[in-house]
Amino acid sequence: MQLGMIGLGRMGGNIVRRLMADGHECVVYDVSAEAVDTLAKEGATGIHDIADFVSKLQAPRAVWLMIPAGITGKVVDQVAAVLEPGDIIIDGGNSNYRDDVRRAAKLTESGIHYVDVGTSGGVFGLERGYCLMVGGPDEAFTRIEPLLRTIAPGPGEIPRTPGRTGDLTPEERGYLHCGPSGAGHFVKMVHNGIEYGIMASLAEGLNILENADAGVREAEHSAEVAPLEEPEFYQFTIDTPAVSELWRRGSVISSWLLDLTAAALAQNPTLDGLAGRVSDSGEGRWTVKAAVDVGVPVPVLAASLFERFASRGEDHYANQLLSAMRLQFGGHQELPSGDVLEAGGRKAESQP
Amino acid sequence: MQLGMIGLGRMGGNIVRRLMADGHECVVYDVSAEAVDTLAKEGATGIHDIADFVSKLQAPRAVWLMIPAGITGKVVDQVAAVLEPGDIIIDGGNSNYRDDVRRAAKLTESGIHYVDVGTSGGVFGLERGYCLMVGGPDEAFTRIEPLLRTIAPGPGEIPRTPGRTGDLTPEERGYLHCGPSGAGHFVKMVHNGIEYGIMASLAEGLNILENADAGVREAEHSAEVAPLEEPEFYQFTIDTPAVSELWRRGSVISSWLLDLTAAALAQNPTLDGLAGRVSDSGEGRWTVKAAVDVGVPVPVLAASLFERFASRGEDHYANQLLSAMRLQFGGHQELPSGDVLEAGGRKAESQP
Amino acid sequence: MQLGMIGLGRMGGNIVRRLMADGHECVVYDVSAEAVDTLAKEGATGIHDIADFVSKLQAPRAVWLMIPAGITGKVVDQVAAVLEPGDIIIDGGNSNYRDDVRRAAKLTESGIHYVDVGTSGGVFGLERGYCLMVGGPDEAFTRIEPLLRTIAPGPGEIPRTPGRTGDLTPEERGYLHCGPSGAGHFVKMVHNGIEYGIMASLAEGLNILENADAGVREAEHSAEVAPLEEPEFYQFTIDTPAVSELWRRGSVISSWLLDLTAAALAQNPTLDGLAGRVSDSGEGRWTVKAAVDVGVPVPVLAASLFERFASRGEDHYANQLLSAMRLQFGGHQELPSGDVLEAGGRKAESQP
Amino acid sequence: MQLGMIGLGRMGGNIVRRLMADGHECVVYDVSAEAVDTLAKEGATGIHDIADFVSKLQAPRAVWLMIPAGITGKVVDQVAAVLEPGDIIIDGGNSNYRDDVRRAAKLTESGIHYVDVGTSGGVFGLERGYCLMVGGPDEAFTRIEPLLRTIAPGPGEIPRTPGRTGDLTPEERGYLHCGPSGAGHFVKMVHNGIEYGIMASLAEGLNILENADAGVREAEHSAEVAPLEEPEFYQFTIDTPAVSELWRRGSVISSWLLDLTAAALAQNPTLDGLAGRVSDSGEGRWTVKAAVDVGVPVPVLAASLFERFASRGEDHYANQLLSAMRLQFGGHQELPSGDVLEAGGRKAESQP
Repeated sequence: MQLGMIGLGRMGGNIVRRLMADGHECVVYDVSAEAVDTLAKEGATGIHDIADFVSKLQAPRAVWLMIPAGITGKVVDQVAAVLEPGDIIIDGGNSNYRDDVRRAAKLTESGIHYVDVGTSGGVFGLERGYCLMVGGPDEAFTRIEPLLRTIAPGPGEIPRTPGRTGDLTPEERGYLHCGPSGAGHFVKMVHNGIEYGIMASLAEGLNILENADAGVREAEHSAEVAPLEEPEFYQFTIDTPAVSELWRRGSVISSWLLDLTAAALAQNPTLDGLAGRVSDSGEGRWTVKAAVDVGVPVPVLAASLFERFASRGEDHYANQLLSAMRLQFGGHQELPSGDVLEAGGRKAESQP
Repeated sequence: MQLGMIGLGRMGGNIVRRLMADGHECVVYDVSAEAVDTLAKEGATGIHDIADFVSKLQAPRAVWLMIPAGITGKVVDQVAAVLEPGDIIIDGGNSNYRDDVRRAAKLTESGIHYVDVGTSGGVFGLERGYCLMVGGPDEAFTRIEPLLRTIAPGPGEIPRTPGRTGDLTPEERGYLHCGPSGAGHFVKMVHNGIEYGIMASLAEGLNILENADAGVREAEHSAEVAPLEEPEFYQFTIDTPAVSELWRRGSVISSWLLDLTAAALAQNPTLDGLAGRVSDSGEGRWTVKAAVDVGVPVPVLAASLFERFASRGEDHYANQLLSAMRLQFGGHQELPSGDVLEAGGRKAESQP
Repeated sequence: MQLGMIGLGRMGGNIVRRLMADGHECVVYDVSAEAVDTLAKEGATGIHDIADFVSKLQAPRAVWLMIPAGITGKVVDQVAAVLEPGDIIIDGGNSNYRDDVRRAAKLTESGIHYVDVGTSGGVFGLERGYCLMVGGPDEAFTRIEPLLRTIAPGPGEIPRTPGRTGDLTPEERGYLHCGPSGAGHFVKMVHNGIEYGIMASLAEGLNILENADAGVREAEHSAEVAPLEEPEFYQFTIDTPAVSELWRRGSVISSWLLDLTAAALAQNPTLDGLAGRVSDSGEGRWTVKAAVDVGVPVPVLAASLFERFASRGEDHYANQLLSAMRLQFGGHQELPSGDVLEAGGRKAESQP
Repeated sequence: MQLGMIGLGRMGGNIVRRLMADGHECVVYDVSAEAVDTLAKEGATGIHDIADFVSKLQAPRAVWLMIPAGITGKVVDQVAAVLEPGDIIIDGGNSNYRDDVRRAAKLTESGIHYVDVGTSGGVFGLERGYCLMVGGPDEAFTRIEPLLRTIAPGPGEIPRTPGRTGDLTPEERGYLHCGPSGAGHFVKMVHNGIEYGIMASLAEGLNILENADAGVREAEHSAEVAPLEEPEFYQFTIDTPAVSELWRRGSVISSWLLDLTAAALAQNPTLDGLAGRVSDSGEGRWTVKAAVDVGVPVPVLAASLFERFASRGEDHYANQLLSAMRLQFGGHQELPSGDVLEAGGRKAESQP
């Protein structure tokens, strides 16, 4: 069937390619004429004005937006202005599901359907297909289902889940109608929240392995921290790149994120050039806020988010305060006389 | 080559089967004569006295223990008593790596090698192979490497990690010599710590989805908790079994633990009969304690452990104390007069 | 000076008493005529219609609302409808500071000042005074400062902070102009977030003490959890009521919340009748959401909030999922044959 | 009564002063002759050889050690070598309670009593008295109780806890016999664990206030992190030194640690010169490990410990790994063509 695509960055472009390879017809637009021309050469109908979607697509139309969340609102308005009742606007980007709820309510007044699609897959999506979490009215979902089935990975070589029988369900093909407008991005939001937790689990664990030689390094130990109590048990120099590769085979924690970790460590075993200032996008934050709203405890997901904040130094003022309080315990920083036998091993302060 | 196996439970028995299928020769022992006989029928040499390992195996011997951690120390002593210098004892159970360090030091005096093997794989190991994390002296590792290679999954159909070239390394075959005695169980311990974190990430995320209908249920809302502020954004009834299946295909969080989650929800969509009292074995605890020892922050792994404690009611006294403090704020539980306009919406107490 | 007070629950009533005792004149209203009459007998001017504030107070007027957050918006509208430009509405309840920002912007159009006052003090406020965190325009703050000074605790017997000299500042008298409208409740919100963290710190610590006899109870230990490894170090039966009292004197953690804990345990040493389902009001949630918004890591404050959620069973579905995943590891719940020597000490499952 | 004191650092010296002021007789020793001479001038009997305790103290003797935990074992041995059956050794330092349990068992063989005293009070102890948590045999506790009563703060001006009547108990005087040997340091350990949690609660909360102007600073916002969604709600420039002072009066979170915070901010409002690398001593770590051992969930206490680790960069490797995984999502760091309309607002990567 026909689809209009707005936004031909890596993901938008690859979705178009996947659709065309399966026989669908794509009309494509991007602010970059070059991006449009590239896809046009590959078989798409390129347009340079959003208004042209009306003439190039047959009603009822479906237009997919694959653009930054920050400009989605504006572009939805532009597209809605040229579409007609019965047409469908699909937001495949990383919108906050709350915006979906608001936009759907507004578009309903003009008879246009709004479908939100949380899309996961990264750079491997062209080949593997994209996992699609869909929200919107039943009618609109049903109409675009042929497109979704193509974009999704399909059952692939992944073994069927024990206990499932009969015809393959949509979720076994990699797409799912999760509920009304907003439900798709809601599920995608939580998906990313989980992603943060899994990433942090792997990173924390490997950090322990990296420091399993603490007993060897104990000699250079600073007085700043508590001494390692049983250095004889921390004498291991672990090859973390090898371990991350090992765990890919047969272990309980084998996962795509572990695959990425192994790849990262294979390509850069000492992680040179990485400052360790970890970015976060909105979904991890929205996940924690949604959990707080509905009263669901998410200590793990929240901790993984806060670790990222701290990695960028956002804990600095708090840490300064902690040091300042500690200074107050001891009154003065100067070493007291008789410090060789000062209590508690903390020479610059008294015992709290 | 030859291997003696002590402990023919599910894992010990299946490791023997995997070894025999690849042409190795196994001498097997268990306290259950029935378990010995079963394996003997499948081709193993069954013995009913640990002392017989000496006559049935050619020196230098290798004996693998696949038994509960609680009795490993005693059985190691029994086996060591009948072995000779140059022989190898392999502990494939879930021992604390600290016990490995102590046992290896002790056995070294009598010339017996001690190898610890952290083994992951669960019930699927017979077919998939077991991921093996090995600690011990180089010489002993090299000698038993043919066995390890058979027990491990091998490269299988898992795509090679980008950036890796040349001959396959041991870790690409699913086993790794991680370091001296104790290193194997140390790596396995951290592996399980990570497992707790990943499991918790999935469980917390799905719990948010399960409660995405909080706005629908708001009417029955109790006065006990803060009211849901924007119920219009929590109107989704999410099919969590379907979502867990969906994420198996093409999503960033696809993983073996997600496969298990999808299987559990396919077989028991409403989780009937599960009280939600989550057990923990030693490794998760040891992981947190090791992290504390070496000064590595593990907020995510620790939170996942503490959630399990709390699931069993171990937070009860703390929670009673919190309620008791809250009562003190308000002096009395009785509603004050004028309560309709009492401040802050908390009628049983004043504002803290 | 004159003040109108709406809401004569415990806090509103006591604030009126504190004001009258210092010579201020109060006009009081409540939906409960009885509450109005009680205060009238103590010297206040009682009214039974909000509209009477106009005639009973001289312009420019100041009306303080001490009512549940849930109805504040409605009452603000009622009061604003009868006030005049230049008058001041003060919200002393537990409103979300976001509502303050919105209300202030709206009232500004009609020339009415809006002041938000975060009020802390609990049942002891009548005697001790209330800590006041104030947001609003400079002019309005200055005008009501005489009232604030009376309601606040004053310097009292609390020793002056080392490093402070000269005249007492407002904050040393227990009230502070924190910034424009919303700033007062923002500071109060964070104050309550901190309160959650301190309460949880005390509760968790005392829970450890309560379980310091785990080694004694080890005999009754269930197979469900990891065995206690060194029971000889957990042989203490600690008298937690006595310890909480002890810490009130000379220790670093002496605090008002510890005083409350000691009082609770003195009155009910075994915490009889407390189910341990801990409520939370909005501020703890708003604090975490604000921290997430501005990117500040608050693992401690968030954990203290999530503990409360979990205490009410909001973690149930997550815990069921964890148990369900663990079941999948082992395939079947039945004990395997040879289970006496089953690996890892976990008989109902294989090793993950 | 008589007491021998070893270790005349700030705490040991001040305890001696407090004892002498109340009429007790002190024999003092330190490796620093100067420290001994200083106390001797103030009325103590100075000795320069530990062996002299035998002649200078009448049997049964009591010798208090106020020395660094690292050398306590050695000094206990030295002292025990010269004492006689029936004498008492008191460890007032910051020992791990496990060492107490071991030392007490060993000393029992030679008839010497061992008493462990967890001591809290910091630099203010000379004046305020020290909070004393005591472990050891009943007989020894009873014998030294007169000393403990003098060292402790006594009831002071702290209001009696509601619900307590009759004679003052020891805990109301600031000392408590918590149980057998080790119980004193166990309670002190947990006390310090709680201290970490309270400190972190204050620091995290004030960090939110410090960043309440995030909406003002939004213009300089980096693309690295999620944009602030509602900058209009984060327009406050909060005076954190003033707020910390304010909360000392009448608020629920008033506490000695808040007093210290206010003092620190009064003396150094911008926290100049503090790098925010927060030290930790052993007790916080031991607390978490003890909680893990006995299965008590302590997410708040653990998070406060891990924040300190992270403040010193111990999270670096984990953070590098997270950044490395994120890079893998996107394949390449270069911006894709068509990036203006790239999905999700994250130009350097695809959508996970």
